[in-house]
Amino acid sequence: MVAALKAARLPVLHTREPGGTAAAEAIREVLLDPRLHVSPTAELFLYEASRAQHTDEVLRPALAAGKIVICERYTMSTDAYQGVARGLGLAVTGPLNRAATRGLKPHLTVVVDVPSRAFLSRDKKRKLDRLERENSAFRLKVRDAYRRLARRDKATLLDGTRSIEDLHADILARVLRRLA
Amino acid sequence: MVAALKAARLPVLHTREPGGTAAAEAIREVLLDPRLHVSPTAELFLYEASRAQHTDEVLRPALAAGKIVICERYTMSTDAYQGVARGLGLAVTGPLNRAATRGLKPHLTVVVDVPSRAFLSRDKKRKLDRLERENSAFRLKVRDAYRRLARRDKATLLDGTRSIEDLHADILARVLRRLA
Repeated sequence: MVAALKAARLPVLHTREPGGTAAAEAIREVLLDPRLHVSPTAELFLYEASRAQHTDEVLRPALAAGKIVICERYTMSTDAYQGVARGLGLAVTGPLNRAATRGLKPHLTVVVDVPSRAFLSRDKKRKLDRLERENSAFRLKVRDAYRRLARRDKATLLDGTRSIEDLHADILARVLRRLA
Repeated sequence: MVAALKAARLPVLHTREPGGTAAAEAIREVLLDPRLHVSPTAELFLYEASRAQHTDEVLRPALAAGKIVICERYTMSTDAYQGVARGLGLAVTGPLNRAATRGLKPHLTVVVDVPSRAFLSRDKKRKLDRLERENSAFRLKVRDAYRRLARRDKATLLDGTRSIEDLHADILARVLRRLA
């Protein structure tokens, strides 16, 4: 995606949540440390801290400089994981998302949807962090939440079992259409 | 304070914010690391993350076990530092404080008020962390905020230039009166 946009001589920044700044990476380490017990509410605030730093230090300056920003995960991930799957409620995550981003919204959100069985079999190939060690019932909840939130936010929901080449071409076409 | 209550055979827990749990101490390290740039909004969320963990893991279990909890700093500190002095607004810090504590409030809040000059001269004796290196104008704002918030929350505001022995006796008497 990023390579294709760069080949088209478009100014592009590829980033991700949680992380992307020194402070956000330090927060990410706390979040993913399997030795630390992090309560669901504390976890929510840590994701929002990382998001606030990343939004202020990375996203806003890049957008102000005219760049196309490709960001892996954003507020919808917090709604899906903490709001729905962990049961804190969208009435809690919504205001915190708005406070952390000060209202900055994506122009296009793409959700790549993979059935749980395929998701689980992919994971076995590598070492798992704390979040990844959650059980499959939790994963089903997360998947269901993303599908519902994609409808709520009019995001693009794509079938993730298609080939990577096919998915890539599809997403690239949608990005280019959005830019035109 | 804690020693006096223990001598009176009262069950007491002494704790502090930010910190008090493994996760909260890890968050505290991010907050106080002078090499990391932490935006005001990210800082606010980190304090709330630490508070949520501390409230769920330390304060609530201790109160449920019938203990008297002495906690250094709580939601008023966030209102004073982030809400007023850093200018994020009490309309932002209030809802986040409530989300982090899920409404848990102290029975008695004591604010020990020290004039800025005395505060500055105390600090010179030891190495300063990031927050402490903030300029004295900021400190004046924080002091003023605490004084106003103490009135708003009907907290006990004490003159911190009195001797430590005198302050200790005064606070102890207030705590014992509250317990009676």
